[in-house]
Amino acid sequence: MKRLFIASRGNPEQMAEMFRKELPDFDVFTQQPAPGDADVPFIVVGRPTPGVIAAVPGLKLVLSLNAGIEHLLASGEVPDDIPIVRLVDDGLAEGMSDWVLAHALAWHRNLAAYRGLQARREWSPLKEKLARERTVTVLGAGALGGMAARHFVRFGFNTRVWSRSGRTIEGATSFAGQDQLIDAVRDAEILVNLLPLTDETANVIDASVFDAMAPGGFFINGARGGQVVDADLLSRLDSGQLSGAALDVFRTEPLPAEDPFWSHPKVLVSPHVAAPTHAHIAVAEMAANIRRFEKGEPIPHLVDRQLGY
Amino acid sequence: MKRLFIASRGNPEQMAEMFRKELPDFDVFTQQPAPGDADVPFIVVGRPTPGVIAAVPGLKLVLSLNAGIEHLLASGEVPDDIPIVRLVDDGLAEGMSDWVLAHALAWHRNLAAYRGLQARREWSPLKEKLARERTVTVLGAGALGGMAARHFVRFGFNTRVWSRSGRTIEGATSFAGQDQLIDAVRDAEILVNLLPLTDETANVIDASVFDAMAPGGFFINGARGGQVVDADLLSRLDSGQLSGAALDVFRTEPLPAEDPFWSHPKVLVSPHVAAPTHAHIAVAEMAANIRRFEKGEPIPHLVDRQLGY
Ligand SMILES: NC(=O)c1ccc[n+]([C@@H]2O[C@H](COP(=O)([O-])OP(=O)(O)OC[C@H]3O[C@@H](n4cnc5c(N)ncnc54)[C@H](OP(=O)(O)O)[C@@H]3O)[C@@H](O)[C@H]2O)c1
Ligand SMILES: NC(=O)c1ccc[n+]([C@@H]2O[C@H](COP(=O)([O-])OP(=O)(O)OC[C@H]3O[C@@H](n4cnc5c(N)ncnc54)[C@H](OP(=O)(O)O)[C@@H]3O)[C@@H](O)[C@H]2O)c1
Repeated sequence: MKRLFIASRGNPEQMAEMFRKELPDFDVFTQQPAPGDADVPFIVVGRPTPGVIAAVPGLKLVLSLNAGIEHLLASGEVPDDIPIVRLVDDGLAEGMSDWVLAHALAWHRNLAAYRGLQARREWSPLKEKLARERTVTVLGAGALGGMAARHFVRFGFNTRVWSRSGRTIEGATSFAGQDQLIDAVRDAEILVNLLPLTDETANVIDASVFDAMAPGGFFINGARGGQVVDADLLSRLDSGQLSGAALDVFRTEPLPAEDPFWSHPKVLVSPHVAAPTHAHIAVAEMAANIRRFEKGEPIPHLVDRQLGY
Repeated sequence: MKRLFIASRGNPEQMAEMFRKELPDFDVFTQQPAPGDADVPFIVVGRPTPGVIAAVPGLKLVLSLNAGIEHLLASGEVPDDIPIVRLVDDGLAEGMSDWVLAHALAWHRNLAAYRGLQARREWSPLKEKLARERTVTVLGAGALGGMAARHFVRFGFNTRVWSRSGRTIEGATSFAGQDQLIDAVRDAEILVNLLPLTDETANVIDASVFDAMAPGGFFINGARGGQVVDADLLSRLDSGQLSGAALDVFRTEPLPAEDPFWSHPKVLVSPHVAAPTHAHIAVAEMAANIRRFEKGEPIPHLVDRQLGY
């Protein structure tokens, strides 16, 4: 019997039960295999506990429980020739899209300002812009950034996407590579980060990016904290160059109690919930990837170890 | 020279200037014509000042400055055989869609709840549902309801539309007429009102509608206050059957200072700004309708005087 090791941190037994239904011909278990045990070709793992992956005998495929895999790579425990599959399912991209658009549209239509007016019983229409009068830049045009960008296009926003290779999204303008980052962001009122965290993208969102935006713009971070220079973000919020930010991800999570983001009047904090994993959808997707691997079929969302995403 | 009377209440001269550019062969004016004046085939008017329309000699076409025309009909000043064109332009439908989706997505993704957690520096993921796990019902499937429903479909919501004739929207389930209203609303978590105000739709959104929804649902009113029984809405907010409401329109506008909606903790009030008129787009659309009328071409969004919308 093929063996599958579920090494997730929270409730692995519950997930193992779900895998047993999807893969009845597999031995699905949650205990760390001992040295000399039979081979374990498949492991399901999120943020890995040190030593866990390295100790698995006969590993052939790593199934990440996350879309972002920088922790897996940083562990150094996955040999270069063992493929890693990111978890990207429909539920994930849908969740991210409706979270990003919720913040973008709420800012675009002044919902917070109207709450302030309501508290004073003040009936005062504000100047409302049409979506077509605003520019939105999405950093990253992959599974998540691409879907968010398509929604922006459908609402009529002047939409731009920035990627490594210049990936195109219908109705949006494409920008590629570090050289075009500032052009991609220039005069944008809404900036959305959906980049993977790699050596190249670390700290890429800094003062020069915020300063290229239209004054009073809004920043939405649904990807990772490590791409953002926090001090630059805070200084641009304080100067008014940015009117606000919605942040779901941080350099340290949970966000420490003393972090200035918690109490900043222009910052909306959420606890890494933009695109939560929905177990049933995720298990079905991972099981399908195991079947593909067994049949030698192509597997979507394999990590490029050179590029780091 | 053909004559066009701009009878809007706020800054008619500014709008007249815009019309003169679009229709250089017209005599565009803003002063009430005197008895015995030359014929004035065209009038542009919003909520009409009493007596203004009735006194226009030789009227042939009324161009409403609003999408909702219940005030024009209630004035009794437009003879039955004079056609009325509603103002429905792209800007209007786009504005309404992004306002409706802003509120729907903000509620769907618990943005207000996370603000509460943030105030206590509490890192606590809430249970997040996928759009596909929620049902949304849009009352009205016309220019505005149809576009909003299409956005809900694209986000993956289980989407229903209710109309008089059973109009279909791709990807949504259609319901028609008073008999199917409760079925259309049953178990919906989000209810959106985009109906015109007519004799038939007045007070149609009452306790029976709110009670058919899923417990803890959200109500969004972007159409008119007169379709809603306010006492029923307040009682269902207080009982918890509704968890909240976003209201842009009211029976009396501006909303009187003593109205309970202003201070209700579950109600978001905005001052009739969901779909503001953008003068340039609106003037271009109305000028195009005048040209169509002159050439005998079909005019979109003519009011059906029998149906009252
Ligand atoms: N907050 C949450 O709940 C949550 C949930 C899931 C995921 N995430 C985060 O979201 C990230 C994105 O996920 P995804 O599935 O959309 O990834 P993806 O499909 O791999 O897409 C990544 C995009 O970023 C671009 N990119 C990568 N490196 C770049 C560089 N150096 N310069 C410019 N563009 C670059 C890629 O360009 P190419 O198109 O040219 O390859 C691609 O368009 C994940 O890595 C994860 O960190 C967050
Ligand atoms: N808050 C704001 O800023 C704002 C701005 C603009 C407009 N509005 C309001 O929005 C309303 C809707 O505008 P619209 O352009 O979408 O109107 P529309 O194109 O005429 O569409 C009206 C829809 O309502 C349905 N309907 C009418 N009477 C009905 C009844 N008795 N039972 C069931 N369904 C009925 C119609 O059914 P059929 O499809 O069968 O005809 C149609 O689908 C306007 O009347 C106006 O009051 C508000």
